Amino acid sequence: MAVKLAVPDPSSLQPVEGVELGFAAAGIRKAGRDDLMLIRLAPGARVAGVFTQNSFAAAPVQVCRRHLSSGSAIRALVVNAGNANCGTGDAGVAAAERSCDAVAALLGCRREEVLPFSTGVILEPLPVERIETALPACVKTLSKNAWGEAAAAIMTTDTVPKAVSVVVTIGGKSVAVTGIAKGVGMLSPNMATMLAYIATDAAVAPALLSQLVRDVADASFNRVTVDGDTSTNDSFVLIATGASGSPEINSQANPEYAVLRSAIESVAVRLAQSIARDGEGATKFIEIQIEGGATVEESLSVARSIANSPLIKTAFFASDPNLGRLLMAIGNAGIARLDVSRVNVWLGDVLVVERGGRAATYREEDGARIMKPEEITVRVDLGRGVVRSVVWTCDFSYDYVKINAEYRT
Amino acid sequence: MAVKLAVPDPSSLQPVEGVELGFAAAGIRKAGRDDLMLIRLAPGARVAGVFTQNSFAAAPVQVCRRHLSSGSAIRALVVNAGNANCGTGDAGVAAAERSCDAVAALLGCRREEVLPFSTGVILEPLPVERIETALPACVKTLSKNAWGEAAAAIMTTDTVPKAVSVVVTIGGKSVAVTGIAKGVGMLSPNMATMLAYIATDAAVAPALLSQLVRDVADASFNRVTVDGDTSTNDSFVLIATGASGSPEINSQANPEYAVLRSAIESVAVRLAQSIARDGEGATKFIEIQIEGGATVEESLSVARSIANSPLIKTAFFASDPNLGRLLMAIGNAGIARLDVSRVNVWLGDVLVVERGGRAATYREEDGARIMKPEEITVRVDLGRGVVRSVVWTCDFSYDYVKINAEYRT
Repeated sequence: MAVKLAVPDPSSLQPVEGVELGFAAAGIRKAGRDDLMLIRLAPGARVAGVFTQNSFAAAPVQVCRRHLSSGSAIRALVVNAGNANCGTGDAGVAAAERSCDAVAALLGCRREEVLPFSTGVILEPLPVERIETALPACVKTLSKNAWGEAAAAIMTTDTVPKAVSVVVTIGGKSVAVTGIAKGVGMLSPNMATMLAYIATDAAVAPALLSQLVRDVADASFNRVTVDGDTSTNDSFVLIATGASGSPEINSQANPEYAVLRSAIESVAVRLAQSIARDGEGATKFIEIQIEGGATVEESLSVARSIANSPLIKTAFFASDPNLGRLLMAIGNAGIARLDVSRVNVWLGDVLVVERGGRAATYREEDGARIMKPEEITVRVDLGRGVVRSVVWTCDFSYDYVKINAEYRT
Repeated sequence: MAVKLAVPDPSSLQPVEGVELGFAAAGIRKAGRDDLMLIRLAPGARVAGVFTQNSFAAAPVQVCRRHLSSGSAIRALVVNAGNANCGTGDAGVAAAERSCDAVAALLGCRREEVLPFSTGVILEPLPVERIETALPACVKTLSKNAWGEAAAAIMTTDTVPKAVSVVVTIGGKSVAVTGIAKGVGMLSPNMATMLAYIATDAAVAPALLSQLVRDVADASFNRVTVDGDTSTNDSFVLIATGASGSPEINSQANPEYAVLRSAIESVAVRLAQSIARDGEGATKFIEIQIEGGATVEESLSVARSIANSPLIKTAFFASDPNLGRLLMAIGNAGIARLDVSRVNVWLGDVLVVERGGRAATYREEDGARIMKPEEITVRVDLGRGVVRSVVWTCDFSYDYVKINAEYRT
């Protein structure tokens, strides 16, 4: 079902020096399917993350926060699909720590140097013994060329693994940026992806890496919404191993900073867009562009009001240029004193709403033409300022209902 | 499709002295189907209303606000289905005023004494000449016994007309409270119904009536959500004709006030629940009860986060007790410092989540049993205070997608 989204060509996925990935079938999700993924980092790698804002943060999210804030050098990440280890209380935290212990014993590091991640069904106890049993097989497959297999091992209802690479030159050294992500539902603007990992062999100072992971999340994963629901397990981790030998970047003023940030952001945006393209039941990929906003907050609020409206999403599914629903959603964004007579809206290149009403030049057949393709752009000019924002989403189809009604059956 | 919602028995609909209703087919919605409704009020009737908070308030909403704030005695209301007269700019306002002029000419009153309402497709010019043509037929049918026909004439995608009556005694006089409503989609907590009219022949002082319409809306229509979208045309009007001869109520301290408010609120709540029962594609009616909240705002925020979650609504459609999604939605309500270890959740009479985790006594078959019926109650105790709130909603089915994907075809 994914909209213009192919399985990544393994040869396009650039190894990142200092990062090895392993995978195995632990039998947590479905028998015989890879559902366990391990990342081993070389000494000296720096790691920063951002996590869900949901009050019911899952046990592994709680453990990640604790291990990251302990100041330990992170040496490994372990990810299981099929069980979210959420709503599991102290026993869930203990299970997540036990998975870290198992990794630490196999790799020869400390529990606090391991970050655990889980995705899947909520409120079921994590069968951590299956992780312990499968981990040795996972370690055996560790390889710097396993990004594609790693992306597949963390999938739940994803139909396509999501992985992207770019290469840039920093200080005369070739630097790789490679990322993987998973997530197709329970996605909303507040840390949209369920799980995303991006690694680079550039060297980045710890404080700058912590800022960078937040800035990149805001510009990428936080701009995706499938159904407006924020998962309890959302996590995005940025790894900088420094193994390329490129000089350390320690300030935004550093001239190489913009090069690296742009590379990381382009990987993150492409992963984020893949998530919307692979949204549950998606048949259309929709980019919502807001311009003329007075603030970032209000422009994002309008974009999300459009992107999360079930009425608009079903109209996109039907390829129906139902312009009234667009106006309804813009009007619902809660903008104080919005002068609707300054609002213009385009579908693709067609001006459909002009100064708050139907554009004089608009013809229904033009709207219908724009709504047909699998990729559609909605552009709204609020006429209030100069701020622009972009959000990505997908349509709402019979299959969204089917997938979510039958998820556990 | 409506969940336990029958066509109202006409004999149950109590006439309200001073209120006559007429209906006609104007050919705006579908040929040969009543889509125009007129209410004529006796002199001395008092009228108050609350309207959509959407920035794109439709032309008739703008005109209603102007006519009500002009201090004119309202003598008539005219309602068309099939066209929302929204996003239609100055021409739309002129068309709404023209419909008022036509009513005023037929009934012998002034334009400002008429309130116009429209519901239907947005961004299409209102064919006001069809209203003008059909109005004489509408006037001919005026009758105090036409509440059922009036409820049918304002339907759009509603499958069942919605009308409710109660009778109470005030100051020794029998007083009727009768209301009608329409609306099945584009409904959200902020003025949930698209159109609702409640009339009583009690006498209520104007300032008190203005307060009463807001209080009743907050306790009824504002507690319903179908899809989280707020329409551009939502309107709720409360009429007190005083024609019963009961003594005027002019203060909340008046002992008869509680009797009347309770009667009006019970009519409004039943109409509001009918809207959720007839939600687009609804197969289940769901009551979300929040208790233990610290404030009304936070308890409503949790209720709406649950009621608007597509993941939860599809699970209800599937009769799947997917408890994790309930936790996810509670955690997404944006409550600062929610102690999840104090949260308990019941499905019907079954404790499913205890202190933030799966209840020790919970068995999947109990959850499955509770999810089967057409009416389901979710109760959440936040463990933070003593505030209770209730919200009504429906599930999210294939038919929701179908109805909204094919609405204009």
